[in-house]
Amino acid sequence: MASISVPNPVPPATEDAENIRKAVQGWGTDEKALIDILGRRTAAQRAEIAVAYEDLYNETLLDRLHSELSGDFRSAMMLWTMDPAARDAKLAHKALKKKGDRHVWVLIEVACASSPDHLVAVRKAYCAAYSASLEEDVAACPLYKDPLKQASPPFLVRLVSSYRYSGELVDDELARAEAAELHDAVVARKQTLHGDVVRIVSSRSKPQLKATFERFRQEHGKAIDDVLEERRSDQLAAMLKTAVWCLASPERHFAEVIRSSIVGLGTDEESLTRAIVSRAEVDMKKVKEEYEVRYRKTVTGDVNGDTSGYYNDILLTLVGPE
Amino acid sequence: MASISVPNPVPPATEDAENIRKAVQGWGTDEKALIDILGRRTAAQRAEIAVAYEDLYNETLLDRLHSELSGDFRSAMMLWTMDPAARDAKLAHKALKKKGDRHVWVLIEVACASSPDHLVAVRKAYCAAYSASLEEDVAACPLYKDPLKQASPPFLVRLVSSYRYSGELVDDELARAEAAELHDAVVARKQTLHGDVVRIVSSRSKPQLKATFERFRQEHGKAIDDVLEERRSDQLAAMLKTAVWCLASPERHFAEVIRSSIVGLGTDEESLTRAIVSRAEVDMKKVKEEYEVRYRKTVTGDVNGDTSGYYNDILLTLVGPE
Repeated sequence: MASISVPNPVPPATEDAENIRKAVQGWGTDEKALIDILGRRTAAQRAEIAVAYEDLYNETLLDRLHSELSGDFRSAMMLWTMDPAARDAKLAHKALKKKGDRHVWVLIEVACASSPDHLVAVRKAYCAAYSASLEEDVAACPLYKDPLKQASPPFLVRLVSSYRYSGELVDDELARAEAAELHDAVVARKQTLHGDVVRIVSSRSKPQLKATFERFRQEHGKAIDDVLEERRSDQLAAMLKTAVWCLASPERHFAEVIRSSIVGLGTDEESLTRAIVSRAEVDMKKVKEEYEVRYRKTVTGDVNGDTSGYYNDILLTLVGPE
Repeated sequence: MASISVPNPVPPATEDAENIRKAVQGWGTDEKALIDILGRRTAAQRAEIAVAYEDLYNETLLDRLHSELSGDFRSAMMLWTMDPAARDAKLAHKALKKKGDRHVWVLIEVACASSPDHLVAVRKAYCAAYSASLEEDVAACPLYKDPLKQASPPFLVRLVSSYRYSGELVDDELARAEAAELHDAVVARKQTLHGDVVRIVSSRSKPQLKATFERFRQEHGKAIDDVLEERRSDQLAAMLKTAVWCLASPERHFAEVIRSSIVGLGTDEESLTRAIVSRAEVDMKKVKEEYEVRYRKTVTGDVNGDTSGYYNDILLTLVGPE
């Protein structure tokens, strides 16, 4: 479901590193060449290229991209070239410095829209980069320290601290029982049940949660995300809905991130870049399908309408053909 | 600070596996030989022996020990032979089935008395063995589901979910501020501050917490564990004290585990085995020193007074000379 297209056979990493060197050396930069090489390699291949580049030229590839490029194109190229765990650690760290739903989204994405092992790798990368744990920074984040909304920081902390069971085993009886608990908490709005909602959503495996959400829909005639959507003025409900999507159908969340970064006055390049860079190797094909069904537009069309130049080029390279 | 004595040079793993085979084959078992081999090898060496044994004899070493040995000796030998992460996962899983402070201790030990990377390994081993995550089982454990003590399960969940920063960097200003927060919560018993206590103890790095606890002692003339000890009828305070010890001075906790497993009517072999097996390669030398200072007895003397036979032999082999 990845959208990037890697050439076959793929050149050796040293050859890629040498061609990148040619593209950044001397007067001017060959941006097209950079996009054509880096935009068409997997994370493992990019990591090898970065090692080869540093071995050959005694400077890091990221430093060189930073000094050579600029603007949104630079951000996209650097985020794409980084190790994905280090990239997500960086995105989470940045999100913790800013207030607003879109920054909370980043934390929920990092926690819920990738595999349990990737989240552990992100937490390790975060400790290495920032000399603090991701969860302590989330827990102590002054932006979330609101005594009236006590559920939120523990909820986010629990999400970023999770290491879910990643097998396929599902307990149907548990799904039935927890669908009922979620219903009582979310629909009947029993405050005392918030603890159970946090517990269920932050600890159960993804297949188990999918079964629970499906059971919720069957029993109550409405999907839990639709119910949560109606209550989105409640901060916890809004966060829950994002978590439900990132856990059970991340393509819906990322289609929304892309669309909302494009509609309205100006483009939110940060969100657009993040969504495309972080899903290109995961589920961008599904994101594009979801996008077309929901918005009757294509990601490519919308990206073309709102971006230009090399920034547009790298995004389209990562998005792949429609 | 490990207490086991590994021979130098150490025999090749295949030779150890062959000698173990001789000890368990035919009529009777040579328990002494098993203790002499397995009791004097590191975790990495035991893992190699287990692989070599299975390759040579087409049965797992653990299965063979299980069928060959019995009683407390068998438990000790099997826990010692297991991979440490799988062992701790097993201990945590067992603890979740039983009520009582001593079982809560096990969870806190697993979460707080080992390195962040070991805890991650335990969580992976737990998922692999039990098709569930450690934190979901802790969070949903019916034994801890007491609406009146709502702080406890989230506290335990936060402890077992942590991946603390493991570097040495300490923020003195933060230590001062959080020592004051802990004091307000613990001494002034402000209920609303429980969230901060949970946050601080479950997320900060160990060096940071040591600095915070030291600051607490300096500012308030009394150590936080002493204050918590006075409030031990409060379940959260009792858990906090155990966590404080496991995080900042695990040798004190394990000296207490050993002593309390020995004093009183009968011996708590489960706790005794767990403490010795899990610390023999970590800090048993410090545990022994702490034990002698605090109880004016030696671990060896107390183990000799309460155990006998091969069970006594393996414990003393792991405890090492006084």
